[in-house]
Amino acid sequence: GSVTRKAPPIERNLPCTLEELYKGTTKKMKISRDIADISGKTMTVEEILNINIKPGWKKGTKITFPEKGNEQPNTIPADLVFVIDEKPHSTFTRDGNDLILTRTITLAEALTGYTVHVTTLDGRSLTIPINNVIHPNYEEIVPREGMPISKDPTKKGNLRIKFNVKFPSRLTQNQKTGIKQLLNG
Amino acid sequence: GSVTRKAPPIERNLPCTLEELYKGTTKKMKISRDIADISGKTMTVEEILNINIKPGWKKGTKITFPEKGNEQPNTIPADLVFVIDEKPHSTFTRDGNDLILTRTITLAEALTGYTVHVTTLDGRSLTIPINNVIHPNYEEIVPREGMPISKDPTKKGNLRIKFNVKFPSRLTQNQKTGIKQLLNG
Repeated sequence: GSVTRKAPPIERNLPCTLEELYKGTTKKMKISRDIADISGKTMTVEEILNINIKPGWKKGTKITFPEKGNEQPNTIPADLVFVIDEKPHSTFTRDGNDLILTRTITLAEALTGYTVHVTTLDGRSLTIPINNVIHPNYEEIVPREGMPISKDPTKKGNLRIKFNVKFPSRLTQNQKTGIKQLLNG
Repeated sequence: GSVTRKAPPIERNLPCTLEELYKGTTKKMKISRDIADISGKTMTVEEILNINIKPGWKKGTKITFPEKGNEQPNTIPADLVFVIDEKPHSTFTRDGNDLILTRTITLAEALTGYTVHVTTLDGRSLTIPINNVIHPNYEEIVPREGMPISKDPTKKGNLRIKFNVKFPSRLTQNQKTGIKQLLNG
């Protein structure tokens, strides 16, 4: 008698922007596969698969379309598996459910106050004034401005703002004297 | 006939200070072992082993004393192996052949100049004036003030001085105004 085995799953990468993973989206993926009729004659057909990206999905999330591989005699077609990948973003990096924003500021800004302006992944403008002294390991945490949590979309991670404080490369003797007086006086 | 097998090696930890590994030293280790006469009668003897620590030896260096384990019938005594370990040091950490010194300084010191005073592992006083602006990732490298290199004791690694710059936790409005004028003016 004939032996029926299942072909091993086929994985395909599905790169998504952070905006897509933040807001959710539907991606239409065109696939091309061989199907066979009862006589064993095969033909190639194209098919559009709709993939529902839910807000908060992470890199590595898998979406399986059962038996969407090629049909071959005595074989159950392979499952087609899409694996979410995250495209690099120009402003944010992601750390689990948190978003990280890194700003390069001058030492003067770090000491005298700095206001962060940033556009969120859904297009809103945020203004975050910081009046604390910003030391090199300072982190400003903005609650619930991170990624949505896919299991509970009413919740969100945090936005964490980090700073790269650029020191002046040299100071004049007058500047040094002034700083000594201001900081030690 | 009798079967002669060798007992598996016995490892013992040999903690050394960074000073000992810098200068080299001889450590006398008292061991106690059983020896057997031809009749098989055993007695315990104490023995002093001299271990020559060479300048520049690293954690994990092994010194083997062949067949210094207990004597037992039909068995070749085990090798006794001492393994160099490095005790934590209050001033320096070691990175291969380099020594790392970390100094916590104020922001004013970082900006206006700072002089490092340090006593070397062989007791010399070093004075290293730094006139550059010391930013948080600044590293001052002092050539040949690291650990000796055991394969060529005429050579030495570097001393690398790192800085932990403490920012003021808050500044008055006057200080902020002054800093803005000094650094941006």
